[in-house]
Amino acid sequence: MDEKALADLGGERIDWRFKAMPDTAFGRTVDEFLAQRPTLTGAGFAGPVLVLDDDALEHNLRTMRDWCAEHGVQLAPHGKTTMAPRLFQRQLEHGAWGITAANLGQLRVYRAFGVGRVLFANQLVDPAGLRWLSGELDRDPEFGFSCWVDSVDGVRVMTEALAAAPPSRPVDVVVELGGAGGRTGARSAEAAVEVARAVRQSPVLRLVGVGGYEAAMAHGTDADALAAVDEYLQRLRDLVARLSADGAFDGLDEILVTCGGSAYFDQVAEALTRPWPTALPVTPVLRSGAYITHDDGLYRAVSPFGREHRLAGQEPPFRPAMRLWAQVSSRPEPELALVTMGRRDVSFDQHHPEAQVVRGERGSVREFAAGECRVSKLADQHAFLQLDPRSDVAVGDWVGFGLSHPCTVFDKWSMIPVVAGDRVVDLVRTFF
Amino acid sequence: MDEKALADLGGERIDWRFKAMPDTAFGRTVDEFLAQRPTLTGAGFAGPVLVLDDDALEHNLRTMRDWCAEHGVQLAPHGKTTMAPRLFQRQLEHGAWGITAANLGQLRVYRAFGVGRVLFANQLVDPAGLRWLSGELDRDPEFGFSCWVDSVDGVRVMTEALAAAPPSRPVDVVVELGGAGGRTGARSAEAAVEVARAVRQSPVLRLVGVGGYEAAMAHGTDADALAAVDEYLQRLRDLVARLSADGAFDGLDEILVTCGGSAYFDQVAEALTRPWPTALPVTPVLRSGAYITHDDGLYRAVSPFGREHRLAGQEPPFRPAMRLWAQVSSRPEPELALVTMGRRDVSFDQHHPEAQVVRGERGSVREFAAGECRVSKLADQHAFLQLDPRSDVAVGDWVGFGLSHPCTVFDKWSMIPVVAGDRVVDLVRTFF
Repeated sequence: MDEKALADLGGERIDWRFKAMPDTAFGRTVDEFLAQRPTLTGAGFAGPVLVLDDDALEHNLRTMRDWCAEHGVQLAPHGKTTMAPRLFQRQLEHGAWGITAANLGQLRVYRAFGVGRVLFANQLVDPAGLRWLSGELDRDPEFGFSCWVDSVDGVRVMTEALAAAPPSRPVDVVVELGGAGGRTGARSAEAAVEVARAVRQSPVLRLVGVGGYEAAMAHGTDADALAAVDEYLQRLRDLVARLSADGAFDGLDEILVTCGGSAYFDQVAEALTRPWPTALPVTPVLRSGAYITHDDGLYRAVSPFGREHRLAGQEPPFRPAMRLWAQVSSRPEPELALVTMGRRDVSFDQHHPEAQVVRGERGSVREFAAGECRVSKLADQHAFLQLDPRSDVAVGDWVGFGLSHPCTVFDKWSMIPVVAGDRVVDLVRTFF
Repeated sequence: MDEKALADLGGERIDWRFKAMPDTAFGRTVDEFLAQRPTLTGAGFAGPVLVLDDDALEHNLRTMRDWCAEHGVQLAPHGKTTMAPRLFQRQLEHGAWGITAANLGQLRVYRAFGVGRVLFANQLVDPAGLRWLSGELDRDPEFGFSCWVDSVDGVRVMTEALAAAPPSRPVDVVVELGGAGGRTGARSAEAAVEVARAVRQSPVLRLVGVGGYEAAMAHGTDADALAAVDEYLQRLRDLVARLSADGAFDGLDEILVTCGGSAYFDQVAEALTRPWPTALPVTPVLRSGAYITHDDGLYRAVSPFGREHRLAGQEPPFRPAMRLWAQVSSRPEPELALVTMGRRDVSFDQHHPEAQVVRGERGSVREFAAGECRVSKLADQHAFLQLDPRSDVAVGDWVGFGLSHPCTVFDKWSMIPVVAGDRVVDLVRTFF
């Protein structure tokens, strides 16, 4: 990555643009603020404030790095999850092969920070975007880029748009295999073969592999869902073999085969590392991105680690790294409190936040008793807490919440304190 | 407002931080870009892109201004909806009395742009926030601020926190009346009277009125809902009268009575402008904020204007001002297309976006036929379009969507083009 661009983040001035930052830090740079060794509880952060736990981040980064190494897969974590260059840097330092992007806006952010290798997990058919890409490929010969193609039409649109501003080297693409009822991706091997053929006829594209997204084929983690994922992965393998037999990958040093969200990456790794016919030079690449923060909702439930380890009665290897603190502003009924947190601050597409701990006026933190407190509803700027009427939760208390689905949490925060215990050790900037 | 701070927005450099902005504009300031008279379809915006229609904004601003004048109410539109200083400016130029805030982060943004009068529609019990407020009140004697109080406990917390950094003038508060099953607010007149008494005993607070939020009492627009709103408004009136009779407002030039979201403001205006006992000097203030953009979902359905006018067979007075353009990246099945728009780009808490128009490769725009196209699902970065299999929607086409609930649309965009026809006439910056 671009060390200077990353260092420049430390020179950014803190001010009212960052909704939770302490007003006493306004006018200071991020580096100046951190040099004061601020604490989360002492610095005067304004609620609500999302916080990342540094130990949990580091633990998750190492756990995923070790697991990928052990299982013989590369990792191009989806950067859409955090859109935080500082976290991309940590992922790359922990051995990530590249970073995955969903769209042009994300790709431009990655390139502003010098991410060297990007998987673009969509068909890029925007003429303005392709023109920009063409310039970027020429500007930096080291920039490794490949995007999805899933239709002959898409190949045509890309080819025509690139012809208007052709790059000096071809744009690498992987043909995407989907399935009926899924998301993008050619619906059959036959259709995928047609797309591959169209790519090989394009003067500006180069076919470098096969991609897919197994989580579009299944929901949940019951036996049927896991079987549907396995069946899809077998189709993906068959497609790789068939295209190879057709000579579609002739002349390549490596064939990129990529799949893997955060729910089934164990099955993906297993499927993509089984021996390939005629020792094809396959580079298997996972794109799981949520592992870095894990969560207290969706991924706690569906992460294969969580499932495996729960079944074995063990502690799951990933740790939740996100916590949001919000203040009780009202307790108008014995069974109801309102806190300063809403749909603008936390995800709500999978689960409501989970009330975990409360910090009272005297500063002591305690866990909620079972059944004492849960979020029953979110408004734009308020959360409704359903309380046991005997609970002593009071106006002015701070409640700490676990969150579900990091992707729709991070996009609500542009500067996020990272803490080691109570000490603020970093401020992570996101770009959404 | 602060003219310099507003003008400085025009000096902001456009770059990769703004996800939809054309890369050809990178490095230019907002003013420089606008001086080139760019067009939406020609400038190379990257999809997805949210666009505001200038005529619709202006029309809505005037309609609401005229309606408030005609009905004898003031308007402090909730700024949380857009968090866009340029739009606050337009609201204030159209006669708004002040701007409403939900939390400290929002208030700090308002003050950075010199908003002179703020209703803080929550009980502010954060000691760091109160310390900052105290300084802000002292720094600017013209700054008009009032916040909610709804409990004796809250009054105590505020009083103790302010005592640590007392402002040279009292902090104005309005006692909030709620209702069983509602949101914040004292649950009974008796409880509210207790709170008012506590305020009058506080050396740092001054009671200036009564507030509430009628939409916490009702859902939808059936007769029961409308009756529940009316009943609540009567309780609010009764509380004003009772507090006045108790002498709670003695010595005030005006009594602030504020209510009104975007669903029932007709009833609120009617209730707050009926004659008051003994000609109390009541200033009735609505807080409706969504009118500025209106929408194609929630507020189309619940806006009293929409309801009234639909009943009378007339065109509703507010016009939807938001449209989001996203590109078709895949059409893997005859009945399915995927577009480059997801939960990161549009609201999904009330309704899915409504596919309205399509722009094909040749640039012509047509409306969808009835039943041709609808959004069936949103992922983080994709929308699933359910299509009539005969539809000619193709990879590369751009689809224009109407959106629901502006509050959860704006917070996904930091720079939003405003268009007059195809011409980009402004870039609205938001601060979330």
